[in-house]
Amino acid sequence: MINKEYSYCWLPSKNDKSWIKKVNYLKLFKYIYLSKNNKFIKEEIIFFINKKNINFVKNINKANLIFIINNIYKNEEYIIKYTNFKMYIFSKNNTGFLYALFHLFKLIKLNLIIKGKDFFIREIPSSLIRMIHHLDNVNGSIDKCYSGNSIFFLRNSVHYNLNRIKFYCKLLSSIKINYICINNSNVDLSSTYLITSKWLIQLYQLYNIFYKYNIKMFISINYKSPIIIGNLNTFDPLNKKVIKWWKNRIKKIYKYIPYLGGFVIETDNKYLDGPSYYKRNHAESSKLIANILKYFNGILFWKCSIYSEQNWKNNNKDIACDIYNYYNKLNGLFLNNVILLIKSGPIGYQVREPVSPLLGSMNLTSQVLELQINQEYTGQNIDICWLPMQWKYIFNFDTFIYNKKSTIKKLISGKLNNIKYYGINVISNIGDNYNWTGNYLSQLNLFSYGKISWNININLNNLINEWIKLSINNNNKVLINIKKIILNSWKNYELYTSPLGTGFMVNPKNKYESDIDGYEYNNYGGNYHYANRKNIGNNRTFYINQYKLYNKKKFNDINRCPVELILFFHKIPYNFFLKKFNKTLIQYIYDTHFKGVNNIKVWINLWNKLKFLINKKIFLHVKNKLIKQYINASNWCNKINTYFFRKSGINDIYKRKIY
Amino acid sequence: MINKEYSYCWLPSKNDKSWIKKVNYLKLFKYIYLSKNNKFIKEEIIFFINKKNINFVKNINKANLIFIINNIYKNEEYIIKYTNFKMYIFSKNNTGFLYALFHLFKLIKLNLIIKGKDFFIREIPSSLIRMIHHLDNVNGSIDKCYSGNSIFFLRNSVHYNLNRIKFYCKLLSSIKINYICINNSNVDLSSTYLITSKWLIQLYQLYNIFYKYNIKMFISINYKSPIIIGNLNTFDPLNKKVIKWWKNRIKKIYKYIPYLGGFVIETDNKYLDGPSYYKRNHAESSKLIANILKYFNGILFWKCSIYSEQNWKNNNKDIACDIYNYYNKLNGLFLNNVILLIKSGPIGYQVREPVSPLLGSMNLTSQVLELQINQEYTGQNIDICWLPMQWKYIFNFDTFIYNKKSTIKKLISGKLNNIKYYGINVISNIGDNYNWTGNYLSQLNLFSYGKISWNININLNNLINEWIKLSINNNNKVLINIKKIILNSWKNYELYTSPLGTGFMVNPKNKYESDIDGYEYNNYGGNYHYANRKNIGNNRTFYINQYKLYNKKKFNDINRCPVELILFFHKIPYNFFLKKFNKTLIQYIYDTHFKGVNNIKVWINLWNKLKFLINKKIFLHVKNKLIKQYINASNWCNKINTYFFRKSGINDIYKRKIY
Repeated sequence: MINKEYSYCWLPSKNDKSWIKKVNYLKLFKYIYLSKNNKFIKEEIIFFINKKNINFVKNINKANLIFIINNIYKNEEYIIKYTNFKMYIFSKNNTGFLYALFHLFKLIKLNLIIKGKDFFIREIPSSLIRMIHHLDNVNGSIDKCYSGNSIFFLRNSVHYNLNRIKFYCKLLSSIKINYICINNSNVDLSSTYLITSKWLIQLYQLYNIFYKYNIKMFISINYKSPIIIGNLNTFDPLNKKVIKWWKNRIKKIYKYIPYLGGFVIETDNKYLDGPSYYKRNHAESSKLIANILKYFNGILFWKCSIYSEQNWKNNNKDIACDIYNYYNKLNGLFLNNVILLIKSGPIGYQVREPVSPLLGSMNLTSQVLELQINQEYTGQNIDICWLPMQWKYIFNFDTFIYNKKSTIKKLISGKLNNIKYYGINVISNIGDNYNWTGNYLSQLNLFSYGKISWNININLNNLINEWIKLSINNNNKVLINIKKIILNSWKNYELYTSPLGTGFMVNPKNKYESDIDGYEYNNYGGNYHYANRKNIGNNRTFYINQYKLYNKKKFNDINRCPVELILFFHKIPYNFFLKKFNKTLIQYIYDTHFKGVNNIKVWINLWNKLKFLINKKIFLHVKNKLIKQYINASNWCNKINTYFFRKSGINDIYKRKIY
Repeated sequence: MINKEYSYCWLPSKNDKSWIKKVNYLKLFKYIYLSKNNKFIKEEIIFFINKKNINFVKNINKANLIFIINNIYKNEEYIIKYTNFKMYIFSKNNTGFLYALFHLFKLIKLNLIIKGKDFFIREIPSSLIRMIHHLDNVNGSIDKCYSGNSIFFLRNSVHYNLNRIKFYCKLLSSIKINYICINNSNVDLSSTYLITSKWLIQLYQLYNIFYKYNIKMFISINYKSPIIIGNLNTFDPLNKKVIKWWKNRIKKIYKYIPYLGGFVIETDNKYLDGPSYYKRNHAESSKLIANILKYFNGILFWKCSIYSEQNWKNNNKDIACDIYNYYNKLNGLFLNNVILLIKSGPIGYQVREPVSPLLGSMNLTSQVLELQINQEYTGQNIDICWLPMQWKYIFNFDTFIYNKKSTIKKLISGKLNNIKYYGINVISNIGDNYNWTGNYLSQLNLFSYGKISWNININLNNLINEWIKLSINNNNKVLINIKKIILNSWKNYELYTSPLGTGFMVNPKNKYESDIDGYEYNNYGGNYHYANRKNIGNNRTFYINQYKLYNKKKFNDINRCPVELILFFHKIPYNFFLKKFNKTLIQYIYDTHFKGVNNIKVWINLWNKLKFLINKKIFLHVKNKLIKQYINASNWCNKINTYFFRKSGINDIYKRKIY
């Protein structure tokens, strides 16, 4: 079981003989010097190579590999220096050590260490918080995950397969993810009990694993716990009994799990009642918990998730406005160990949305950008969709909050506002599927996330190359063909799905297949396209006002508004001329959809050429996914084109088949 | 439990004292003479009245109530004669006796027997087969039923509550239903085993109950049984092993259940593989089973359910053509103990469909009309929809197969073709809900079905009156208000849902709520409306050709085609002028939808006036349903009107609110 998992990811397997040979040849691990006798590092080394080859020596001169701990280095920083046939690793503590070790493993695997050829590597993170959030429920199911069931929980217990969890920590650690939230922030009834003794004993097992890999563990808690667990008749954050209850409870939690990172709280959404019931705002509501957490150096992640009720019959109500409207005015009112989790877009997780105006706008409150890698609306581990291309567009968005170049990149690197915490959180795509992510190529989304959150300026081309070499092989044709597919995949997903920022033209049940009116006549959780026979889109005057002056002007001006988002911001006629693309809107819709489908045909061709060049199982697995993606894309294309042809009555100028 | 059930239906309860008083007053049951000593009848009598009041006498002169069996009467016929303060009942056998007894009960309950006022009643059925088909599965679930779980099966056994089943038989018998199929014709894996010993022992229990009430029991069997149960590697009906297997199996079944009615078979549909896999047609496929059934005087009901694959992108493929195309050419090739079950419409179960051209067209093959009372597409026991108004339209349809007046009514009364079997089958609306049908008013659909299939010319007005008096009370306001709701209910459902014969504008998952494009871009089981910005509907030239000359001409002519079905047969512009309604198509759509919603407001008003006139529980129950219906109708109205306004761009001339 575990072996199976090993062989389907970017980390080398215990049994990977070629890799062991290489290590032996370099003799790197034969004699090891540790400036402190560190148990964890030993374990790691022993895990990856033959035990018999290792000697821990006291003498630095005799060693091939020298680990030196020194306080002069920054937290998480590490240096790898190869000189005089010796390998040196410097870091402040265990964390840097661990990261360096994985870095070293990678260099060996990729043949980047050549005997006698010196080099020097120094790494420091660009983001403080590089978090992954699992939407696992204690019954073993996972919300919005398309790769199986939980690896943490099974039928209301911690999962018996701790080995898999350990290996998962290695995966995370190898890409330097340092925060994890292990359960769904929409805390269901059973999961609410995670903070009771029965569970805390078990959670300690998990905590103990994460701890070794420098991963701070967080749990999502239910704001209504005082009622559900405590049998109080209120959960009003200003009620004395409630405050006392939380004090005792959190004390208890930290008694079981001394270095727990803290909590994630989502509340006041369509699933969970929240403090708004007592007319308390989220600043004062978070204060209650954050105040207690301070005693334990705990952090509270607070999800920005207040949306008003939608009404398809009333287009003055626009949920895109809600998040900014609610939270921006609370700037500075949150305690300094509270971090807001803010979704990249104002509604949520579409293939293309404008960047949320809340991001960066609260200069006195810590904020973390939240992204999805579970691909809820971007292919669900069936369709290939490499998300860093989307992130690039988000990172480069200029908020103009201070002046030019007030980018999101600066926000998540802690360079925009003088706030304590900064970084990124992603919704996990990990399940108990043998290849972890359902579609093997989706692993690259996780891999990329780790790499990018560590180094926001990383070269994406190299990043893909590295993953392919580590996870598949380094044949040149393999590299070229897969990269062609990957690099184009996000843009292509955008081509064959909802056009130009409309989003949400999906079946509300599965959020995957095309259903143009799926959300159009519903009062929950979508964007309305308002398409009639003349035009389509949403005139979002109110929403645009939430942006800073320059952006406001740009988005308001139909001729300067980014074309990719024009239907999100404006209602325009089907024959509106898109200068950027030199065609009308309707022709753009037809063209992109035909092109999107056609590209997947090309991908299938590219993939088929790898038949004898890669692992057979991976070949067939991805081929199968590509065929499903082709069917999905064809359905999208046919439905969208037919829908808008019937509505607009305007012919495709190339006379292609529209039904 | 049982008492509860008693009090929520049209049969009097054991404890209904006013009714018992009446009987005592009339002294009808004090001395009873039976021309044969019949156990079943005795049981019935004892069941309904106080035991102590009954005396069975040998002397006809002493008796108040005289039952006389005589071979001169027809099967199922009965006569009730009241003369000289004595009540006489004549019939051929037990069956007529039973029906007469229930008739008598009703007369007493309704105060229609006045001491000394003589009368004479003679009843004979208009249809031979008056069948009810339960889509129950042995796990206890029911397909397409909206009133709870099975009353026959519970967790893969016959239900322990046999008393409820007995009472159900009384209900059926009181409305003279004489055939029942107890399980789903889409036989799932577990239900396939109904014909194995383990189950047959249990089924005998059910059979034994039905038998007493003159209800012939049928079971649905899986055509693939030779593979599933028999472990053969084929179910080809011409294979000798398969034939031998069925011979042994059916022999076994009849050993356990000697007078079993026979089987229902549905096969070759989207759920069940069928003999078409071996390229056998349904005539030769049914022959195999029917041949064996003949030995046991068994009947085989064969469901006409072959549909080709649909394709929304290809409007030359029309599933409306399929049933006629496939079965008509097999006329005369079925054995004479095979009865075809033919749905009233070519696609299925919509509020309005044209009558299937197959009905009556096969002059050498027995055919039974199939209707739904489970309201799959007509309100699902939430919305009130009294179906006999639909049936009236179906019964009066003139097929012109021989000449004028070749109506469906004649077909089901055995007067159209010289075929052995004729009648009606309905899909049951019965579940384990306390009031049997989910919505109390839906009981009237079952009640009416029994009454109408017995007497096709029954006065519908009287029928409703009778039900209200038996099931609620005979207050004049109650009668008037409820009748107003009931009589208008089918037509009103048509008003606020899919317009003019389009059908299927529902959410494919629940088949209840409005989803105009729900089936439009799908390849399964619906009708396409093909609405674009100019027109809507389906030009059905191929399909129309299946009708006889006169109908063909009528349906083909856009000006003579029944307006209620115009969008089923023709694609017409939104501004097409409907002479019958003196308005354009689009205005008709707007008007009917606003009107449909408004009518329910009126109904709620009518119902509220009954607050102190009827049983409180029934009052609140129906009120609740009406409110749900109002919400549903409003949603339909808003979605349909908005959809077609956006598509057509044509304003409502009355400027009502469209979104």
